[in-house]
Amino acid sequence: MRAVDALILARMQSDVPVIPMLAEHLIAAGGKRLRPMLTVAAARACGATGAIDAPLKLAAAVEFIHTATLLHDDVVDTSDLRRGKVAAHLIWGAPSSVLVGDFLFARAFELMVETDQMRALGILAKASGVISEGEVLQLTRAHDLNLDRDTYLQIISAKTAELFAAAAEAGAVGVGADEAAVTALRAYGLNLGLAFQLADDALDYGGASETLGKNAGDDFNEGKATLPLLLAVARTRGREDAFWDRTISKGQRTPDDFRRARELVIGTGALGATLDTAGEFADLAKAALSVLPPSDWRDALESLADFAVSRAA
Amino acid sequence: MRAVDALILARMQSDVPVIPMLAEHLIAAGGKRLRPMLTVAAARACGATGAIDAPLKLAAAVEFIHTATLLHDDVVDTSDLRRGKVAAHLIWGAPSSVLVGDFLFARAFELMVETDQMRALGILAKASGVISEGEVLQLTRAHDLNLDRDTYLQIISAKTAELFAAAAEAGAVGVGADEAAVTALRAYGLNLGLAFQLADDALDYGGASETLGKNAGDDFNEGKATLPLLLAVARTRGREDAFWDRTISKGQRTPDDFRRARELVIGTGALGATLDTAGEFADLAKAALSVLPPSDWRDALESLADFAVSRAA
Repeated sequence: MRAVDALILARMQSDVPVIPMLAEHLIAAGGKRLRPMLTVAAARACGATGAIDAPLKLAAAVEFIHTATLLHDDVVDTSDLRRGKVAAHLIWGAPSSVLVGDFLFARAFELMVETDQMRALGILAKASGVISEGEVLQLTRAHDLNLDRDTYLQIISAKTAELFAAAAEAGAVGVGADEAAVTALRAYGLNLGLAFQLADDALDYGGASETLGKNAGDDFNEGKATLPLLLAVARTRGREDAFWDRTISKGQRTPDDFRRARELVIGTGALGATLDTAGEFADLAKAALSVLPPSDWRDALESLADFAVSRAA
Repeated sequence: MRAVDALILARMQSDVPVIPMLAEHLIAAGGKRLRPMLTVAAARACGATGAIDAPLKLAAAVEFIHTATLLHDDVVDTSDLRRGKVAAHLIWGAPSSVLVGDFLFARAFELMVETDQMRALGILAKASGVISEGEVLQLTRAHDLNLDRDTYLQIISAKTAELFAAAAEAGAVGVGADEAAVTALRAYGLNLGLAFQLADDALDYGGASETLGKNAGDDFNEGKATLPLLLAVARTRGREDAFWDRTISKGQRTPDDFRRARELVIGTGALGATLDTAGEFADLAKAALSVLPPSDWRDALESLADFAVSRAA
């Protein structure tokens, strides 16, 4: 991962000063480097030993794509915190965030071109398209209290899990793994991504800002219809309709509303049910790994699935 | 070009309804399809006969990249007209414009992957990065009356001419042209792009809204330091400093200011000088074509260079 970090830092440079400044603000803030780690670990779990030049570049490309979507997301959501720091668009303005996102996206493809791995590039190009489709879908259904569970899962599958899937799949493809391993790692990544996003959505009602790197209550305060909220709405039907209608559908919120929403999400068991669903996807992720030969890397991927859910506990 | 249009329409589809709606708003509005035409014409001018599957897909990808940058530009500039229609972000909101731009950018790369032409893909990936660098540079120097001519040319080279260059180069690479032809078509595209942007910047002071597809005066009303403005500022130094300082540096404009700015830009010969510079680049573009064998396609590319400048006359 040190090699990936070095690549990331080297390739976000530009003669236009605001670009590395803005990129560094977000990339140096860290985050977990979860997605590029998947690419590297997938390559290793497929038995690659020695230098893995292509997967390292693909991993850096994955992080660039992720960072680009974060920059654009923050503009779309008008978030004020990201990775525990003030969101970039509040410092440099939304236009810079949009354009530096574009720059990082382009850089991602330049890195992929260097690997000369067209199949891996195709996987990440497709994922990029699916992510933006998921984001648009989320945007158009953002405050919709009638969102059903399947549509919600479709949204997070596209906007989050697809990049996890592509990151792991590209790592396997990048070292010429056999098709069974490629399929398994894609399935692993997809289910891991779903578990991760569900846990994240739960954390917004159950976690503290310090462990989140964003504000607890952000989703609620943006009126986002996430699963814990949708479940709480369903479980309080007839009792709290006016509250949800006002705070989510109409978007009229007072500073105190989040406390009440949180009580309802926790009290109705909606939080627990969301975490249970996250746990089910984590189990599916682990199960997908069974076709791979036993190795320390396979174990690490298994642990990662547990981590994705447990951080929310 | 009909085949390219068909590809464009087919590949901007998505199950998420707002995406094709927004994309169609802009793409169906037409524009001149200048950039994809370059890709096709370059391939043909290199002697390709019969089916040219790869260049057609590359051409559609070029138009997608261009459309994505327009969508993001409109958000950055908060323009209200594009291609003679109300800008998309005013109908669907800035977030949708950002995300649909991302979608089209991803689709561009998916199309390029299908051609299996890594070199052409690399050319367009690099161009995409350069474009966003140019946009950021323009953003940070937007209202700077001290912008020198070289920096101005550097900005329009990056934000506009690079895609013209890459479009023509990719067309040549896409049909396996020899290196001399590839280099020539890149040089042609770059100079054509410079001529085109200079003429466009001149038109903002000399043209009518109907022929522009945008509002005459848009650049001035956004306080943009383009060459005609910079030349007029230099040629009225000591006389009009207060006017330029107020309208551009401070951004305090009244509806009547554009009329006065236009008079100064025309009266000082700044408009004519900008068009002369455009003409010089058009000549360089035409000269670059001399290494290609004579053909109807080479003639068409020559005419295009004349058209780029003459539409401003």
